[in-house]
Amino acid sequence: MAQTNETEKKPGPLSGITVLDFSRVLAGPYCTMVLADLGARVIKVERFGTGDDTRAFGPFVGVDSAYFMCFNRGKESISLDIKSPRDRELLERLLDSCDVVVENFRPGVMERLGYGPERLAKTHPHIVYTSISGFGHSGPFSELPGYDMVVQAMGGVMSLTGWPDEEPARVGTSFGDLGAALFGVVGILSALYSRTRDAQGARVDIGMLDCQAALMETALARYDVEGVVPTRTGDNHPSLAPFETFMAADGKFVICAGNDTLFLLMADALGSPHLALKAEFLTNDLRVQNRQQLVRDIEAITGTQPMQHWIDALNEAGVPCAPINTIDRLFSHPQLLARNMIVKVKGEGERAVRTAGNPIKMSTLSEVDPEVPIQSPALNAHREAILEELMASNGAYAPTTHDDGDVDDTGPDALYQAASAV
Amino acid sequence: MAQTNETEKKPGPLSGITVLDFSRVLAGPYCTMVLADLGARVIKVERFGTGDDTRAFGPFVGVDSAYFMCFNRGKESISLDIKSPRDRELLERLLDSCDVVVENFRPGVMERLGYGPERLAKTHPHIVYTSISGFGHSGPFSELPGYDMVVQAMGGVMSLTGWPDEEPARVGTSFGDLGAALFGVVGILSALYSRTRDAQGARVDIGMLDCQAALMETALARYDVEGVVPTRTGDNHPSLAPFETFMAADGKFVICAGNDTLFLLMADALGSPHLALKAEFLTNDLRVQNRQQLVRDIEAITGTQPMQHWIDALNEAGVPCAPINTIDRLFSHPQLLARNMIVKVKGEGERAVRTAGNPIKMSTLSEVDPEVPIQSPALNAHREAILEELMASNGAYAPTTHDDGDVDDTGPDALYQAASAV
Repeated sequence: MAQTNETEKKPGPLSGITVLDFSRVLAGPYCTMVLADLGARVIKVERFGTGDDTRAFGPFVGVDSAYFMCFNRGKESISLDIKSPRDRELLERLLDSCDVVVENFRPGVMERLGYGPERLAKTHPHIVYTSISGFGHSGPFSELPGYDMVVQAMGGVMSLTGWPDEEPARVGTSFGDLGAALFGVVGILSALYSRTRDAQGARVDIGMLDCQAALMETALARYDVEGVVPTRTGDNHPSLAPFETFMAADGKFVICAGNDTLFLLMADALGSPHLALKAEFLTNDLRVQNRQQLVRDIEAITGTQPMQHWIDALNEAGVPCAPINTIDRLFSHPQLLARNMIVKVKGEGERAVRTAGNPIKMSTLSEVDPEVPIQSPALNAHREAILEELMASNGAYAPTTHDDGDVDDTGPDALYQAASAV
Repeated sequence: MAQTNETEKKPGPLSGITVLDFSRVLAGPYCTMVLADLGARVIKVERFGTGDDTRAFGPFVGVDSAYFMCFNRGKESISLDIKSPRDRELLERLLDSCDVVVENFRPGVMERLGYGPERLAKTHPHIVYTSISGFGHSGPFSELPGYDMVVQAMGGVMSLTGWPDEEPARVGTSFGDLGAALFGVVGILSALYSRTRDAQGARVDIGMLDCQAALMETALARYDVEGVVPTRTGDNHPSLAPFETFMAADGKFVICAGNDTLFLLMADALGSPHLALKAEFLTNDLRVQNRQQLVRDIEAITGTQPMQHWIDALNEAGVPCAPINTIDRLFSHPQLLARNMIVKVKGEGERAVRTAGNPIKMSTLSEVDPEVPIQSPALNAHREAILEELMASNGAYAPTTHDDGDVDDTGPDALYQAASAV
């Protein structure tokens, strides 16, 4: 546990902001990862012994979980035993000095531990207190467990994803968790901004289901106006053509030529200007009506050459297009590399793992878009440093050295007994 | 054009912030919609005559586009003719008084018009200047057009979405646009926060492709560690079982019982405790290995009763589950209704359309979670009020009344000639 303390301010727009992070697994940690990427100091409060559940999720790089490393880069870790008066005192000190609290327990857990939003609004009114849960802290569903897949199903996106003649598919990334995480960050930052004027914290209550609804684009309004239930369209845009995937000699790629000008340019780029003159393809509406024939005609051309040939020609002509990249191809993608979007994260061991970096490119951020691996913390790695820091800021506080062994003897602490029922 | 001016501050954490919004279609307007929902004043700068392209997108409610209404609620509209010296002067005044600029043209367009980030950083250093584009303003792809579907294909999410034995599917909502919009909001708010300390604006440069990579969860790290290309898993979680859809007598629903305790509770709730005792289902690993048989065994039970029967029993037992809701069912969803997530938006006409509300529930926001329809602006509806306001704040400025007819005679203005090439 030789990691250094990071009490010196990190660079970035959120430099000086301290986040006390009780969250685990994905939605909460992703939210605080974005804050850490922007320069906030994030102190991750973990249970003794095992810490965040994802420390046990494979695959592993030596002793380190790649899952944990991805979402906890640049954070500090401290284990607290909520049953211990000394650790409760330490937690009060941390609350005194933090700006933001983030938790993603089921509603009621933080209250039972004595750290609910109503209590903290009284004792620590400066805090932006943020909960991320399946359904939010109000309403008839608020007590129900909400996983990513539960809200993907309930919120409608699965009904829109996949092929029309196949079963609904899950979005291939945790859209439910990540959407909620991003709305959580937005809530926190808007509250931090307004706090600069009224010196008041706020309560931010994010429900994953609410966020799913907010991300359904025009689907609700279309149903409200037309009375037709929106459904799956596979790979195409329901009202634009060509706007879908096409087979080249060596695989499928996407062409988006949803207006007449782009269709003309596309036909030229494919070396088949006559395509744009066919009566049945003259307008977008006609192309949508005759989509099957359009796809057949285009694939008769694209199937003759490899994908890159067509992509080069279409890019040259300014027609939006793309290969359907598999994940392995992202690591060598020239644009992602140029934008420093592939970063290395280290855990306790020496071996780094590569993952996506911070997509918010800012003038003030150039110094924090790192060239060196960002580190995810060993469990409780920052306890000593945080204790020393609290001592330095207030001589009256006498810390106790507390290592994992002490508490393993006393069994799981109350914080995470409650949490494990989540 | 009887809409009133909204120069009085709106409630909400971003009250007092003014956004000058040059963006159109989806990613930019969604970004500024979130800002407006949080209390910012958003002045939408539109081209004369036609305005935002989406004003012409169906379906329509009377004269109003439902698409436009959804993402432009609560904004003001002004049309500007960039070729007119008077309107350029007006634009300078608006830049003087705004805090944030948002644009989603292709890189280079704003520079050619004379409002690029480098120029504004000199003349208006207080502004948070935000660009959202397909690939960002640097790197070898920066000049290429990037639509939602292009970055969904290029960024990897399509390779992960759909059924393993079928073609890749598009995420059924514009994940590429909306993800970039949310990271854009995060960038803007972090810059507004840091501006309260150093009185400096910032440049925020969001590339949709970068955001796609950032939303790939652990897929990159898993490939980096294991060397196996992640692929589509249809409706299930690749390493948890049961964590997928099941057929009831009247349709499919989701059960997420990814640990032994939940599996036991599920078996009880389905009235089949013996399921949990089967040797082949004793651990999650075994259940993943024997997934096909597990699904068959569970569906032999769930197929005997309607979905709601099982959902009630599973909810009672605390097992995460959900119906696969179609969009129509969201309008009557008790949780979404209790959380005020279905809101009404009006345009120029009287008829409102229902869409999803603001998912960021905050203590300071209760007053802005509206009971009455939010209004999307008629094109140029706020020109007179904005001119009067600028007059009042500076007597020396002599505005010109400018209606659509004036400019239709002179042809499309330079701003949107450039834009239409995007």
